[in-house]
Amino acid sequence: MKPLGPIPPYFETIDGQLAIGGKTASALVKEAGDTPLFVYSKDAILRRITELRDALPDRVRLHYAMKANPYAPLLEFMADHVDGLDIASGGELEQARGAGYLPREISFAGPGKRDRELFAAVRAGVTLNLESEGEGERALDAGKALGIAPRLAIRVNPSFELRGSGMKMGGGAKPFGIDEERVPAFARKLVDAGANWRGFHIYSGSQALDADAIIESQANVLDLAARLGKEAGVPVPHLNMGGGFGIPYFDRDTPLDIAAIGAALKSQFADLPQILSETNFAIELGRYLVGEAGVYLTRILDRKISHGTTYLVTDGGLHHQLAASGNFGTVVRRNYPVAIANHFGAEPAEEVNVVGCLCTPLDRLADQAHLPRADVGDLVAVFCAGAYGASASPATFLGQGAAREMLV
Amino acid sequence: MKPLGPIPPYFETIDGQLAIGGKTASALVKEAGDTPLFVYSKDAILRRITELRDALPDRVRLHYAMKANPYAPLLEFMADHVDGLDIASGGELEQARGAGYLPREISFAGPGKRDRELFAAVRAGVTLNLESEGEGERALDAGKALGIAPRLAIRVNPSFELRGSGMKMGGGAKPFGIDEERVPAFARKLVDAGANWRGFHIYSGSQALDADAIIESQANVLDLAARLGKEAGVPVPHLNMGGGFGIPYFDRDTPLDIAAIGAALKSQFADLPQILSETNFAIELGRYLVGEAGVYLTRILDRKISHGTTYLVTDGGLHHQLAASGNFGTVVRRNYPVAIANHFGAEPAEEVNVVGCLCTPLDRLADQAHLPRADVGDLVAVFCAGAYGASASPATFLGQGAAREMLV
Repeated sequence: MKPLGPIPPYFETIDGQLAIGGKTASALVKEAGDTPLFVYSKDAILRRITELRDALPDRVRLHYAMKANPYAPLLEFMADHVDGLDIASGGELEQARGAGYLPREISFAGPGKRDRELFAAVRAGVTLNLESEGEGERALDAGKALGIAPRLAIRVNPSFELRGSGMKMGGGAKPFGIDEERVPAFARKLVDAGANWRGFHIYSGSQALDADAIIESQANVLDLAARLGKEAGVPVPHLNMGGGFGIPYFDRDTPLDIAAIGAALKSQFADLPQILSETNFAIELGRYLVGEAGVYLTRILDRKISHGTTYLVTDGGLHHQLAASGNFGTVVRRNYPVAIANHFGAEPAEEVNVVGCLCTPLDRLADQAHLPRADVGDLVAVFCAGAYGASASPATFLGQGAAREMLV
Repeated sequence: MKPLGPIPPYFETIDGQLAIGGKTASALVKEAGDTPLFVYSKDAILRRITELRDALPDRVRLHYAMKANPYAPLLEFMADHVDGLDIASGGELEQARGAGYLPREISFAGPGKRDRELFAAVRAGVTLNLESEGEGERALDAGKALGIAPRLAIRVNPSFELRGSGMKMGGGAKPFGIDEERVPAFARKLVDAGANWRGFHIYSGSQALDADAIIESQANVLDLAARLGKEAGVPVPHLNMGGGFGIPYFDRDTPLDIAAIGAALKSQFADLPQILSETNFAIELGRYLVGEAGVYLTRILDRKISHGTTYLVTDGGLHHQLAASGNFGTVVRRNYPVAIANHFGAEPAEEVNVVGCLCTPLDRLADQAHLPRADVGDLVAVFCAGAYGASASPATFLGQGAAREMLV
């Protein structure tokens, strides 16, 4: 037996079934027309955003990193509830504009921006978080060619990292941002070149569950931004403090202590250096806003026994849920939270392996899971499917096609 | 410095550039319109097929497992050069029919077949490799409903594995096939139920580079098929012996000794038991036929230095080449063969990290690689990109969109 991850607290039981947004899993599948199906809960997202706003200082603006989930209805929904959007490609810029975000609310980071993406961003009036001096020169050139002062910020590669983060994006050689010691000279140059100077973007890691590590990182970010601004002799109109807020995926993961982070940030804000006194602060969150709000529903096509092991074979798999299969950035595979959606809350009765329909041994959704008895036709729910699911999986693999998606 | 994998022997140099099918990388990119671009070489595929046909007994039919690469022009091209096609979904069935394959040349394996896929296969006259007794019952039901005797084979979960294979698909509890001890009774049942009985499919592993392991596995497959047929009292009209032929991806990987495999198979065929004397034998290969024939070309967008480390940031990445990034079925990341395509064969001059354009530290194409000096605008070639590349990667991730593809 291997443990399952913790089921997020946003769901209820109706008629013995998992319910999302007041509808049972079966009803949602019927409405969508078929499985596999991603369901995203507006209520769960709103509760998460409310919790965050309650905990964090009013002064912090909440940005959504759309790479986590670019599903168009969700993206439109988020536009009414966050203060800004972070994008990572020209494709995301088009999606963001389609969803109604204003260019001045959008900032664009990403280490490999094509010239056509820089031109599109400058033309639209989006803030570019510059990842290198070379990219900065190209952005200035785009501004000149278009006769527009480009909105430019510098993404800083900080010398510190976010301790305990799932992915480190600072603390040594990185493809992201400009090493902090080279930032002041380049900031000065951008301002002198007539850019619409926006400030700094400092992102030190992602998916951390330790509040103390995030508090320490945020303090470091504030110190660094103040120091860089002073050294450069430039103001800091905007500071994207990064994100890094993790969600519990696996057994023994515990939720992040947002209250502690908020309290620490309030105390840091009460004692800001002069150069940051007028700064707009933003926190950039993707997974933390939407990850736990999503459920992936897939139907059991076969129940089979091999050498005493029971397999539940579903119509889903790694082509929609690569991360849950353990094949995306994880070294040791662990189980996401998984349940039998139409026997939700029933007592576990057997140990099973839940697999996908792909003809590869990589396609696993739960290993040695203790679950209620399930049969062909039953629905399996994989939780924590709201971020890095549908858009971050190889949907065309083996000709299976994309999953359906719904926002309820 | 970390070593790079071996560059496949199918490419030449023209004007100091990597050339595929007689055209330079630059010319191919110009023709395609942009990078990133997958180029698949017909010549490389044909040379591989010729080598195989020369080495293997005439009696072995060569099947293409289209999961490796379903690009439509390549699929059509393969139709003229292989003897059969292995598919793994209803979607692949449609693609196969579109590419001109005859239903009797097609067999369909995969642990999670939907009823609509079983109906489509039975209606078309495709052979179903049954993965469980339950699936077999559903296939018989489909045949009854359609008034067609379904073409049925049993996929056997063998008690042996393919030693040294990248993915084991036998030797213990597996979601694939029916455990060998239950096969005779079920084969008998299918024949008695009036199925168009096709025989067995025994696939014990993939991506093996050790000829002795494949020879041993093939001998085991022949023994097992004969034994199962005898025990069931059924003929073995067809035997899909699986594949498992690997290609060298990484430093110190050596090419498979096909001559040894062919010689062993000839000697096994010279001494077949009576029950296999009329059997059609097939070997099912995907990666081995097309993997080394493909090159992924991506352009350098930025050249940057962080803490003394040089990064070449390209417009490609794991959204097209997930396996090369080390995020698909590998525990320890190693470098695929990589070169600077427009300085092909030039002496290495520096150590660099080649990364993709995605805003995630997972997006690496080569770590600490020793390569000729390369600058913005130069082309990076990632080899061994013909299989499990474009279709097995999260193309929509971060809004970057699909790569271009060409068959030359």
